[in-house]
Amino acid sequence: MHLLEKKIVQGLLPKRQAYSHKGDYGRVLLIGGNEQMGGAIILAASATVASGAGLVTVATHSCNHAALHARLPEAMVLDIKDQAQLMAALQATDVVVVGPGLGRTGADLLLLSTICSSLTAEQSLIIDGDAITLLAENPLPQSKAFTVYTPHEKEWERLSGLPIDKQTVKNNQASQEQLNSVIVLKKHLTEIYFPQDVWQNQSGTAAMATGGMGDTLAGMLGGFLAQMHNKKSAILAAVFLHSHISDLIAETSYVTLPSEIIKRIPKAMKEFESTLEVVL
Amino acid sequence: MHLLEKKIVQGLLPKRQAYSHKGDYGRVLLIGGNEQMGGAIILAASATVASGAGLVTVATHSCNHAALHARLPEAMVLDIKDQAQLMAALQATDVVVVGPGLGRTGADLLLLSTICSSLTAEQSLIIDGDAITLLAENPLPQSKAFTVYTPHEKEWERLSGLPIDKQTVKNNQASQEQLNSVIVLKKHLTEIYFPQDVWQNQSGTAAMATGGMGDTLAGMLGGFLAQMHNKKSAILAAVFLHSHISDLIAETSYVTLPSEIIKRIPKAMKEFESTLEVVL
Amino acid sequence: MHLLEKKIVQGLLPKRQAYSHKGDYGRVLLIGGNEQMGGAIILAASATVASGAGLVTVATHSCNHAALHARLPEAMVLDIKDQAQLMAALQATDVVVVGPGLGRTGADLLLLSTICSSLTAEQSLIIDGDAITLLAENPLPQSKAFTVYTPHEKEWERLSGLPIDKQTVKNNQASQEQLNSVIVLKKHLTEIYFPQDVWQNQSGTAAMATGGMGDTLAGMLGGFLAQMHNKKSAILAAVFLHSHISDLIAETSYVTLPSEIIKRIPKAMKEFESTLEVVL
Amino acid sequence: MHLLEKKIVQGLLPKRQAYSHKGDYGRVLLIGGNEQMGGAIILAASATVASGAGLVTVATHSCNHAALHARLPEAMVLDIKDQAQLMAALQATDVVVVGPGLGRTGADLLLLSTICSSLTAEQSLIIDGDAITLLAENPLPQSKAFTVYTPHEKEWERLSGLPIDKQTVKNNQASQEQLNSVIVLKKHLTEIYFPQDVWQNQSGTAAMATGGMGDTLAGMLGGFLAQMHNKKSAILAAVFLHSHISDLIAETSYVTLPSEIIKRIPKAMKEFESTLEVVL
Repeated sequence: MHLLEKKIVQGLLPKRQAYSHKGDYGRVLLIGGNEQMGGAIILAASATVASGAGLVTVATHSCNHAALHARLPEAMVLDIKDQAQLMAALQATDVVVVGPGLGRTGADLLLLSTICSSLTAEQSLIIDGDAITLLAENPLPQSKAFTVYTPHEKEWERLSGLPIDKQTVKNNQASQEQLNSVIVLKKHLTEIYFPQDVWQNQSGTAAMATGGMGDTLAGMLGGFLAQMHNKKSAILAAVFLHSHISDLIAETSYVTLPSEIIKRIPKAMKEFESTLEVVL
Repeated sequence: MHLLEKKIVQGLLPKRQAYSHKGDYGRVLLIGGNEQMGGAIILAASATVASGAGLVTVATHSCNHAALHARLPEAMVLDIKDQAQLMAALQATDVVVVGPGLGRTGADLLLLSTICSSLTAEQSLIIDGDAITLLAENPLPQSKAFTVYTPHEKEWERLSGLPIDKQTVKNNQASQEQLNSVIVLKKHLTEIYFPQDVWQNQSGTAAMATGGMGDTLAGMLGGFLAQMHNKKSAILAAVFLHSHISDLIAETSYVTLPSEIIKRIPKAMKEFESTLEVVL
Repeated sequence: MHLLEKKIVQGLLPKRQAYSHKGDYGRVLLIGGNEQMGGAIILAASATVASGAGLVTVATHSCNHAALHARLPEAMVLDIKDQAQLMAALQATDVVVVGPGLGRTGADLLLLSTICSSLTAEQSLIIDGDAITLLAENPLPQSKAFTVYTPHEKEWERLSGLPIDKQTVKNNQASQEQLNSVIVLKKHLTEIYFPQDVWQNQSGTAAMATGGMGDTLAGMLGGFLAQMHNKKSAILAAVFLHSHISDLIAETSYVTLPSEIIKRIPKAMKEFESTLEVVL
Repeated sequence: MHLLEKKIVQGLLPKRQAYSHKGDYGRVLLIGGNEQMGGAIILAASATVASGAGLVTVATHSCNHAALHARLPEAMVLDIKDQAQLMAALQATDVVVVGPGLGRTGADLLLLSTICSSLTAEQSLIIDGDAITLLAENPLPQSKAFTVYTPHEKEWERLSGLPIDKQTVKNNQASQEQLNSVIVLKKHLTEIYFPQDVWQNQSGTAAMATGGMGDTLAGMLGGFLAQMHNKKSAILAAVFLHSHISDLIAETSYVTLPSEIIKRIPKAMKEFESTLEVVL
């Protein structure tokens, strides 16, 4: 198991090229936020925007649109119930983040099925929160997209069938292989399972143990994947920085709220920007 | 009467354990906010989140959902009129805060009655604002939950029957005993009545005398009770820090607005974090 | 004409007494904000809250409630069209601020008429913006409340009948006498007409010449009048500090936005707090 | 091609005259923001307000009003579908900014047609985003207003007919002449085409390549044109400062979000304020 620590991440974030435009930094579509959990998708989208994705669209229940715009005018919105707009957005996007505050109704499952079946191998898909549980309970055909799951231990139990005390690196690797996806297993010292190797995050503390933290990570993963060519680097950098920012805040704060972490993403990324991009 | 001062609080806030997750820091359900007083429940919930509660849900009039999400995406919402969702939330929560901006209609009284009768001895209940007046005017069967009342002097008069000039420590203790609850009697030098002893808060000034301040304290009490095993420590720490933060702000501000106090909760808590937890 | 300058204001803001509560700092009811100009009443109410009024209620079009709560959870709201609630609020309040973003429809005029006729001599009334123009065009019986008008030069022309080039101190004093109210005539070097004397504000620059600035002053006047016994001191302090804060910001900013001024009110007031209250 | 650099801009922003009021700094009407892209017009309007325009009104879909007021109480709103109010606002304004988040429906085209035909030679018109594409696809009679187009390269291709690799200075100048408007061609080293000369912006980096950046520039152009007599100076100053602020932020941030740029406009303008106004 490789250790994901500061010196590893130092070379992962490429310096942006002068002759580039927002199209070069990817389109991200975030899908989630029902009538009770709109905050989750707002946090996720805020993290995606702060990470520097080129264009960010949020498909969420229309009751969440005003709050989202009030916090994040940089994002576009669409009504999660508008099938036609959603299909068009799915085709036009580079990355999809699905799950934060989604809910687990039949309609949510249908939506998830549509997403999985319509994406292509050129696109990336981050499956978080309720979307993991829905997929665990209702196996759907695997999406062709490059897929990342972001379960916490309980969700991983549902998805992999491994009880928490059986979630050893070896067992997790076997499940990862079967799912043919990258697994970001969120816990103290988060583990990231790639087809070839496993990484253990060295940043983060219990100051992060608060609602909305996972949504924030899902959004960062979307933003990093949208703009970086190297998907492995994008995932590792997002996981590390998410916790690293919390560690910086936790020096003077008892808890580190998601919205505080999001504010600090652009500065944290700058410190890890490198003109010599490293490929792991 | 014990003096609640800085050196006492210094040992009350436990350092979080590395191997923990948001579930370990409790679920808080805040109930309040009608069409006129949505701000009260927004302030209370913001204080709960900033205090580090694991998961925060707000049951409020649906007209307040957008504003709440715009300020506090870390919280979940539910419609205060949705009986089924509210019952489910009451069962799932560790702590209930009821009262900020609630109103005093018949429907509010029925809701309060439902809350009081459905909670168990494993849960905590903070009764604030309009909920105190409703209970004073319409005595309901005592809840099985660990209960904290947060009246100001006028509300305490209604609840205890003691006119303000009769609110001596002795009389208040007698009323506390009868109510079988903890009483946080808000005033200059707030008094806290436990079954065994009485404390007098030494922090706070008239810069706090502004609307929303009590809602903020109720929210902090919810957040502290959700995550600390020792309920007495949680209550004393919340009361002291609420005023202590105001004192820090008041050094350079004529008034200390609730939203300014809320912002500073995580930093203030950090200063009182202790690896050697003291039991009073 | 007296000069309103820093050394004069230094003694006007009394230090708050330890044994006091929010009731001692007054209730303010702000009335305004139609479907197009909700921002005006939001700014006014924010200034009132930041000035330290004890309890602040905003009567505005219901379409403005969510935005107001999102910015200012410290305030309560009511629907400006709800006659019964408005009447109750008018009776319960110490100060009324009417006008910011009000509009000039027949309904607005009726509302203004109700306000003027229902207030008593114990209450204060600040008449700003559209309410001034409505009163200029539709003279209503004088309110019994202590009344302050806050016209800019064009509005003063409408109210007093004096064209701008005839707005000399002498003519203005004559009009003030006739109106039996305090006049805050807003312009470069704002003039304040009391029954006995006239003051000329020495703070303020053209960096303040931006939309919403007058609404902010009206809100400050409401907040200061609500908590200070000496009405003259309250008015002079509010007018001076409003511009003084702008001057501080303008040292490093080309324009000084109302929302930036509002943020700095509590700190600015602290600098002028005095234990030796001066009576002018 | 002239280089637009710091020393050129230093003399462009006039110091405000003491005896002035908000009317002297112009009225700006921003038109855009449909149900999906309300954030775009919120960013544009925020930039206009922060630039110091005297009075700012936003015509946008009513679903965006609450979010706009929650972020920007300094602006007024009107329903983009209310023809009568829109016509009145078009007549009363000094500057129109049309396009951010507008959409491209038939109704949007009709609206654009109304705008173009109703403005007079005394007014200014900034045509951005969707409005450019609409005009490229549906040529309308030229407006009598002083007109600025703000296309990126792809939009310029649509409007001028020049494929990106044919967008040479000479070809662009020819198109500019035909359009009889100022062209702000947004790209790395943005070019500004006036009837007499061409300027190349020297500020800006790829940290700006993110959604909402163009909306922000359109809003700044509106704010600068509203308050400066010299239109050329206004345009050059707005383009340079927009990128210059980004450069300052980019020293410590990987990306520079539009909302962060907007916050810093008043301070950046102050640094370029000059008592000796230069005419280029």
